[in-house]
Amino acid sequence: MEKIIDHLGIAVRDIKSSIAFYEKVLGATLIEHYVSEAPGVESEVAIMEVNGDRIELLAPTNNTTSPIARFLKQKGKGVHHVAYRVDDLDVALEELKEQGIRTLEHTLRTNKHGRRLIYLNPADTEGTIIEYCDYPEEKK
Amino acid sequence: MEKIIDHLGIAVRDIKSSIAFYEKVLGATLIEHYVSEAPGVESEVAIMEVNGDRIELLAPTNNTTSPIARFLKQKGKGVHHVAYRVDDLDVALEELKEQGIRTLEHTLRTNKHGRRLIYLNPADTEGTIIEYCDYPEEKK
Repeated sequence: MEKIIDHLGIAVRDIKSSIAFYEKVLGATLIEHYVSEAPGVESEVAIMEVNGDRIELLAPTNNTTSPIARFLKQKGKGVHHVAYRVDDLDVALEELKEQGIRTLEHTLRTNKHGRRLIYLNPADTEGTIIEYCDYPEEKK
Repeated sequence: MEKIIDHLGIAVRDIKSSIAFYEKVLGATLIEHYVSEAPGVESEVAIMEVNGDRIELLAPTNNTTSPIARFLKQKGKGVHHVAYRVDDLDVALEELKEQGIRTLEHTLRTNKHGRRLIYLNPADTEGTIIEYCDYPEEKK
């Protein structure tokens, strides 16, 4: 099944100054800015677009439970994950099983934009945090 | 000046198994595979293409002087840099000066594919390692 880069997730500390940097320096457009207290996110999220490519800025709202806070503590600011869009996440999950690639099952969720997503186990992806996602609503 | 994501640079330890992962799981095509002993690189490089997007896998060939080795020690495997293509790097450098964004001047170089590149100072980019690049040969 075809994979297409959907977005980059970037861990930041200060969402306001990060939005300003992407707008002023990289010419990005702010598409949406909201707080997600969903378990496994717990972050302030800014969706930016740079010439058609999407960047998701993530700043933790909870310093102990947010996975972004843990990432910042371990690795510092920078690219947190690379998300690949697939046509059908269920089929892609079957494919991963056959390939012997594990997922982090507790991360499977549908976000408020109708994007279904899951994280692959970084132990099986040469270290990069990889998200697989699909948009079931768009196919109806 | 317009910026377009040119590629992602990903720090890995084992280039062979990383190439295999990107080919088998993400459906990537290996475009080129070479060793660059240029100062500031000192890495085995694999250029991969995933549906038109380019990913540069980087595995250090020197464990003390390679910046990729230092990155792996500090942060572990994962996305090392995001490269943005500009039409004219000289004009983009002037723009950065006006914006008060510093560059790492010692990183300015032209690689063997005719790509001119420089890294921005991560202290001024909200933490992400950002490359600016242009392809002067393509404009002639």
